[in-house]
Amino acid sequence: MILSVSCVMSTVSSGQHTRPMCYLLLLMILQLGLHTAEGVWPLPQTLISSTERFHLSPQAFYFGYGRQSAAQQGCSVLDAAFKRYFALIFPDYTSGRWNLFSDKNESKILLQICLCYNLSVFSGRASLKAVTVWGALRGLESFSQLVYQDDFGSYFVNKTDIKDFPRFQFRGILLDTSRHYLPVQAILKTLDAMAYSKFNVFHWHIVDDPSFPYQSRTFPDLSSKGAFHPMTHIYTQSDVRRVISHARMRGIRVLPEFDSPGHTKSWGKGQPDLLTPCYKGGIPSGTFGPINPALPSTYHFMATLFKEVSVVFPDSYIHLGGDEVDFSCWKSNPYVRAFMQKMGFGSDFTKLEAFYMENIVNITSALNKTSIVWQDVFDYHERVSTPQQITHINYEVRSTLFFYYAELSRMTKAGMRVVLAAPWYINHISYGQDWHNYYTVQPLNFSGTEEQKKLVIGGEVCMWGEYVDATNLTPRLWPRASAAAERLWSDEKQTSNVDMAFPRLQDFRCKLVRRGIQAEPLYVGHCKQEYQGI
Amino acid sequence: MILSVSCVMSTVSSGQHTRPMCYLLLLMILQLGLHTAEGVWPLPQTLISSTERFHLSPQAFYFGYGRQSAAQQGCSVLDAAFKRYFALIFPDYTSGRWNLFSDKNESKILLQICLCYNLSVFSGRASLKAVTVWGALRGLESFSQLVYQDDFGSYFVNKTDIKDFPRFQFRGILLDTSRHYLPVQAILKTLDAMAYSKFNVFHWHIVDDPSFPYQSRTFPDLSSKGAFHPMTHIYTQSDVRRVISHARMRGIRVLPEFDSPGHTKSWGKGQPDLLTPCYKGGIPSGTFGPINPALPSTYHFMATLFKEVSVVFPDSYIHLGGDEVDFSCWKSNPYVRAFMQKMGFGSDFTKLEAFYMENIVNITSALNKTSIVWQDVFDYHERVSTPQQITHINYEVRSTLFFYYAELSRMTKAGMRVVLAAPWYINHISYGQDWHNYYTVQPLNFSGTEEQKKLVIGGEVCMWGEYVDATNLTPRLWPRASAAAERLWSDEKQTSNVDMAFPRLQDFRCKLVRRGIQAEPLYVGHCKQEYQGI
Repeated sequence: MILSVSCVMSTVSSGQHTRPMCYLLLLMILQLGLHTAEGVWPLPQTLISSTERFHLSPQAFYFGYGRQSAAQQGCSVLDAAFKRYFALIFPDYTSGRWNLFSDKNESKILLQICLCYNLSVFSGRASLKAVTVWGALRGLESFSQLVYQDDFGSYFVNKTDIKDFPRFQFRGILLDTSRHYLPVQAILKTLDAMAYSKFNVFHWHIVDDPSFPYQSRTFPDLSSKGAFHPMTHIYTQSDVRRVISHARMRGIRVLPEFDSPGHTKSWGKGQPDLLTPCYKGGIPSGTFGPINPALPSTYHFMATLFKEVSVVFPDSYIHLGGDEVDFSCWKSNPYVRAFMQKMGFGSDFTKLEAFYMENIVNITSALNKTSIVWQDVFDYHERVSTPQQITHINYEVRSTLFFYYAELSRMTKAGMRVVLAAPWYINHISYGQDWHNYYTVQPLNFSGTEEQKKLVIGGEVCMWGEYVDATNLTPRLWPRASAAAERLWSDEKQTSNVDMAFPRLQDFRCKLVRRGIQAEPLYVGHCKQEYQGI
Repeated sequence: MILSVSCVMSTVSSGQHTRPMCYLLLLMILQLGLHTAEGVWPLPQTLISSTERFHLSPQAFYFGYGRQSAAQQGCSVLDAAFKRYFALIFPDYTSGRWNLFSDKNESKILLQICLCYNLSVFSGRASLKAVTVWGALRGLESFSQLVYQDDFGSYFVNKTDIKDFPRFQFRGILLDTSRHYLPVQAILKTLDAMAYSKFNVFHWHIVDDPSFPYQSRTFPDLSSKGAFHPMTHIYTQSDVRRVISHARMRGIRVLPEFDSPGHTKSWGKGQPDLLTPCYKGGIPSGTFGPINPALPSTYHFMATLFKEVSVVFPDSYIHLGGDEVDFSCWKSNPYVRAFMQKMGFGSDFTKLEAFYMENIVNITSALNKTSIVWQDVFDYHERVSTPQQITHINYEVRSTLFFYYAELSRMTKAGMRVVLAAPWYINHISYGQDWHNYYTVQPLNFSGTEEQKKLVIGGEVCMWGEYVDATNLTPRLWPRASAAAERLWSDEKQTSNVDMAFPRLQDFRCKLVRRGIQAEPLYVGHCKQEYQGI
């Protein structure tokens, strides 16, 4: 058997991908057998499987680059993926054994990976052909899910033909590391699980009101005074590099969010004069509001901070927040009010916020970053939003299905690209099979033209941190987020039935558990291998 | 410092306790210092603490039996507890080091445990005086919670005077190992955490409709055919012994439940002719209902099974279930109907169920077991219930606060002893701080005489297993169950305010996390030591 991967474009060195990937997976069968394969989650665009099965022997299983492949040994992403997927496919052989394919071994069972364009199918081989190296990673994931063990521990893979590509290019998960600190290990584990569900964006809501765990080189006081603990509850530069590298190896981009001007209480601890002093009865009350938009020093600070951030986080996108700004403190402050008069804003504080956001967007644009902001910025400051930006649709629990359709319609009509987050606030829990709610979302079911629908570039599962830290993150996230993953990856018509999805998601959840992901059960039942991590 | 424990009664050998324990903990202080002790959860009946603090050096910390103590070295429960609590108090010294007290070392810091009745306080010592060895365990738990570390890692304990006893004698947690199989390790870990919250009954809902994981010596087919998997998803005799022993060492009784005649689908797989064949159109439909109460073979089987169970589970109580019996299958079966006629039950199937339960209660009574049944048995078969039994109050989510008060009133008026479970169905989750609901329960706030209120012997937190297995058991259970634990242990008036409980429960939750219990956060914030088990 040969699995050859063809990547049309050699984008290995680009570091991050920004466009849809496609790949093609074809497995040829040498031996006949029973059909017990359980399939792939999220569902590939086309999958034709047979009951014919092929025995895989870990001792005679090889990954290798084809001779015509543009990528060869030394391609760090695929080299590492071979090692990782060998361990995932054959968990009983965890010594990390993986051999490169050699043409001399053609009588053995081979998995050949090349970047040639044409697909070649030989007896006893399978081929994987991908447009990008990131697509090859998705194909390896699908392949790994096709391999199964019988009751005696032998490994099998059924004859399968897959043609696959993602429906949406942006498939994100937001983690909130401010309301609770998440140890780096918890983030890395989440990235592992994200790759299993083919998520490709880690939206790192890294700082917020409660704490500022990002350790800035330029402004070390931000974390030394604003983190929960200056030594143990921070992300060092090395931690961030580790997260970005771990993500990149799995085809996941890291989108950092430094939310302002609201949600910045923790910033004020380490940066004097950044937040607006609130007034009461004509004198400062001692409390502070959002970032002070009336001081030139604010913009100098933000430019310096974002200059650092833009280097530390290499992704071309940056999230600027902009949500939930409370105007009461600004209103109370006589200097802010004087600034309003000077700028001709009258008493319209949305203009002040727009002015602030415009400045921040300009700062990051000058750093060659594309901005993402929460929907509030679109709602209140349309003049700030330009079609170059991608606007997050962001609703809290008050959001209804009907409501976010109206917003999608309105924002795409204005030419905005949008990422849909509203229906996937997965931190909200309820009793029973609430994954149904995440699965049955129809992101394009709003009234609009075909052009408008193309502006919906994807969706995002948000795990806000009020009630979540490393103790319960994983079981709350998985497999509930996997339901959204299928909605974002797979064809909607083929995945419209929750009852048909149920046994597939149950099976996928057991695969997660087998891989050491503490994914909670959907309903009564069991996994062949239960979670042993207690 | 000396901590001397006095147990009035020498009940070490009894194995299981059935009555309230009391203990008295007094710590004397040698050095002055800052007050940073965080207290004890659940709140002791009286606790007087001082800001004076005493430095504890792990190298010079000793447990020992006093010379006048009835228990001496060789008392397995306390010997093991010393070892366990040394590791809990000094997690940095996990080599398991613990030395017995020797009088020669009086210049060192000593923790002396004896079973003498009179409390003696010496300078530099603390004493723990307990009525039973189980009370001594509770006192050790309280002591361990009083010890804290400063920022430099030094250990301290503040001057504290505690007089304590539980409000209710029955403080249980139900785990359901039928809807999902829980690996033994998950049960043992739960027992550890139960001891930290001073729970003392593990109600093991071991079998039910979906699976029969208990491996019976007498009827091995019950698990080989009725478990999710005959080899990997069972509890062997050795597993059960391990659970009981682990529980006993922590002062926890194991109350097994073999629920019948309903909830027995899995029993039918391994025991032919046990379940009632359902009929449709005059012929057997191929499906089965509750246990067949019309066949003598049923009672022979149940007597044999319970004979084994009563030996395997040494506790004097046994739970017989009896809940949610669906009569439709019995009604459909002509032989059952004929039996009804013969017995003079007419068409009142509650009489048939009462007949069945009466037989089962008689079987277990003959084995010297006290029966516990779910409330249904009281509701429908009052003639079965006798004051010797303890009746569980059991409501599903339909239950309202008002409703279970009425039931408590009604059942205690009939002279029944009751265990309150209705408000603590902790498997039901919702977003936010739902521990408030478990904390604000007032078990005795029903209308009834003082005599009636004495019949409420305790309460139970139920973790039904529809959506719970080893992946999410611990974060769903803790610290939410700890809220109920305080209600069951502590004085109601002293613990009537959730806002005052909040910081204490937050602190206790961090203590659980530090001990390796994956207890989820209550709200935004952090623990000095976050969960590292990912």
